[in-house]
Amino acid sequence: MRAYELIKAKRDGRALAPEALRALVDAYTRGDVPDYQMAAFCMAVFFRGMTDEETRAFTDAMLRSGDVLDLSDVPGVKVDKHSTGGVGDKVSIALAPIAAACGVVVPMISGRGLGHTGGTLDKLEAIPGFQVRLPVERFREVLRATGACLIGQTDRLAPADRKLYALRDVTATVESIPLIASSIMSKKLAEGIDALVLDVKVGAGAFMKRADDAERLARTLAAIGAGMGKRVVALLTAMDEPLGAAVGNALEVKEAVALLHGAGPRDLWEVTLELAAEMIVLAGRAPALDAARAQATAAVEDGRAFRKLQDIVAAQGGDAAALADLGRLPAASATLEVRAPARGVVQAIDAEAVGLAAVALGAGRARVEDPVDHAVGLVVHRKVGDAVERGEPLCTVHHGARGAERPEEVAARVLRAYRIGTDPVERRPLIVKRIG
Amino acid sequence: MRAYELIKAKRDGRALAPEALRALVDAYTRGDVPDYQMAAFCMAVFFRGMTDEETRAFTDAMLRSGDVLDLSDVPGVKVDKHSTGGVGDKVSIALAPIAAACGVVVPMISGRGLGHTGGTLDKLEAIPGFQVRLPVERFREVLRATGACLIGQTDRLAPADRKLYALRDVTATVESIPLIASSIMSKKLAEGIDALVLDVKVGAGAFMKRADDAERLARTLAAIGAGMGKRVVALLTAMDEPLGAAVGNALEVKEAVALLHGAGPRDLWEVTLELAAEMIVLAGRAPALDAARAQATAAVEDGRAFRKLQDIVAAQGGDAAALADLGRLPAASATLEVRAPARGVVQAIDAEAVGLAAVALGAGRARVEDPVDHAVGLVVHRKVGDAVERGEPLCTVHHGARGAERPEEVAARVLRAYRIGTDPVERRPLIVKRIG
Repeated sequence: MRAYELIKAKRDGRALAPEALRALVDAYTRGDVPDYQMAAFCMAVFFRGMTDEETRAFTDAMLRSGDVLDLSDVPGVKVDKHSTGGVGDKVSIALAPIAAACGVVVPMISGRGLGHTGGTLDKLEAIPGFQVRLPVERFREVLRATGACLIGQTDRLAPADRKLYALRDVTATVESIPLIASSIMSKKLAEGIDALVLDVKVGAGAFMKRADDAERLARTLAAIGAGMGKRVVALLTAMDEPLGAAVGNALEVKEAVALLHGAGPRDLWEVTLELAAEMIVLAGRAPALDAARAQATAAVEDGRAFRKLQDIVAAQGGDAAALADLGRLPAASATLEVRAPARGVVQAIDAEAVGLAAVALGAGRARVEDPVDHAVGLVVHRKVGDAVERGEPLCTVHHGARGAERPEEVAARVLRAYRIGTDPVERRPLIVKRIG
Repeated sequence: MRAYELIKAKRDGRALAPEALRALVDAYTRGDVPDYQMAAFCMAVFFRGMTDEETRAFTDAMLRSGDVLDLSDVPGVKVDKHSTGGVGDKVSIALAPIAAACGVVVPMISGRGLGHTGGTLDKLEAIPGFQVRLPVERFREVLRATGACLIGQTDRLAPADRKLYALRDVTATVESIPLIASSIMSKKLAEGIDALVLDVKVGAGAFMKRADDAERLARTLAAIGAGMGKRVVALLTAMDEPLGAAVGNALEVKEAVALLHGAGPRDLWEVTLELAAEMIVLAGRAPALDAARAQATAAVEDGRAFRKLQDIVAAQGGDAAALADLGRLPAASATLEVRAPARGVVQAIDAEAVGLAAVALGAGRARVEDPVDHAVGLVVHRKVGDAVERGEPLCTVHHGARGAERPEEVAARVLRAYRIGTDPVERRPLIVKRIG
């Protein structure tokens, strides 16, 4: 294997043999292929793409660059959910306990926030004591005892992907569907799952701005999964405005808890319910989506899902009592209201701008090594299609002393993210498409 | 300047501002932009190209990364010739003295052979004592005294280009017209020339296989020169079969000397004469190409051009007497004939394969650090369109003891490079196009 020849072949639009891709990934992981050759290769892939066979081989090579968990000794069908990242996306925190309460085994490996999108690990760490770094044996025990466990990626899962992602991040080669898909799937397939539900976000606040790109990504992800004998269902869901109302770590935990009490925002519930139903069907706990939706709804209504979250939090070292007494979660020292400058109807809310406003408060990070303030964030009161009177609160800014920008500047950002007009607005469907 | 943003902008097809390109080249030369970012940038340029303005700015930044010679104290118009590289291309060795004998000042900075193409420096070093590394002051003195001086690139000329070329060479980003053009022109414009004649080779044995690519390169080179106030003329010349008969360092010197005695191969003379005429006109020594051709022809016929080569060789420390007594040049210990397997007409000779056969003998180098055997090489007796009888010599292999392959293997390579058929062959014109 000469890296030069592979770069040149890809550059010239030729498909590479699975063995060649495996050799490239292996040599890169060992350090025998330098970053500059891999950067040129990734840019060639950006322009030339990969066939399904190439993407599958590339994924497989990254998957096998580290440990692959074997959860076969944990009884039950293991199903995870992966989201491509959005603003206000606290779905996992409610979804994992709902699915587990319905008999699905949920080995969930999540990420941290970066850029305008938040990360489940940061949100969970808003719960005092919650541990996202567990040894594999403890991960197995928690899964077995509670049916769900939510942790971060370990150094030993898909190290090739971690190295490659860091390189892509600084060489403008992130936005390539085969590279995105192989990155996601190499990590997910290393978890030892049987099936996977994908929440592929699409819209102004998502990585994929256009539905056709999102669909291509979803189909690529599903094809990789199918090629490796895993059942994969993907939902394309709208990410134009923030999902739910809360954006920020402790604020999102509170909203997820409210959802488990049957009191969450309608859009958040719609997406969570649909993903839960897919997981329940994939796990063989319901024969069809209708029955699965009914099971998930019942698990929320009778309190099992909320108690399941308490069990998971307790098993991972967190303060489960804080979920019943939300005042024990971190809270911002002060708030500031963003008020409507005119009467009208909310035409659009730029989710990416709202996400970046939360980062400016300290809720997220611009660089991987930045710390996060769990208390701060935003709560959106008016969403797209809502009527609003002049002076009414659109959004509350929960701020602290450590933000990169003053609260007034953040409030101005949020105001700019809102477009208020006089036209009536037709709400677009939240579940754009189902692929699977 | 953030390198990431520039890579992304180029990747997305946007033109970069001259200042941004200058900052990128400067930061790369200093080491502040790492190789992996520059590799991704070069691959994006491969796919997206550069505008003329971008190419000019990129060239200018590389040119200014090191010293720019000032030859204004040397009287006369300074004109150089640059070839994009071919097989059997010993033109410079005859051309520089012809032009100098006609009053052109020729400050020629040449390269070494790499891959299947030879390099003028390696050929000149076949002359005992010849020095291609001269201090700038000596370069100036030789120019002033003889009208021509042929040396190698110094470390201080366009160091950004040297660093970037080494990176492109291992990242499959060599074959990009704006990158090729800026590399050539940054070095040539650092020589302190007034005008430049380009010999852009096109064909199976050239870097540019297709005439339209070669023409685009020629036009890009001319546009850069024009943008920097230099007169540039480009000739597209055919490089399908080797130029002339000899391939190999001392063998090519002997053929160049024969040319200066009026006894060289017809094709070599045609290209050399045309390039000489262009240089003479650019230097203002003749009003038009016809008159310039007559001057060049006269300089050969009356022996001035040969004596000029002797002067140049002597001034650069070489054994000028060896040019009159060619037995003093290195010679191979043995020869082997490649004979025609059948009667017919030579349909084609793969120049690249012939070049690689010479490398296998030790005449060229596969890697920059490889040594070169000046004595070995090939002499082609039958060229495209020539009739040949079964068993007649097609080519003589001049071999030594140090080749990478046995002489019989090299002979087999040469035989495979020949295509002999029964159809008559129409010779294609050697000078394909003139741009200027």
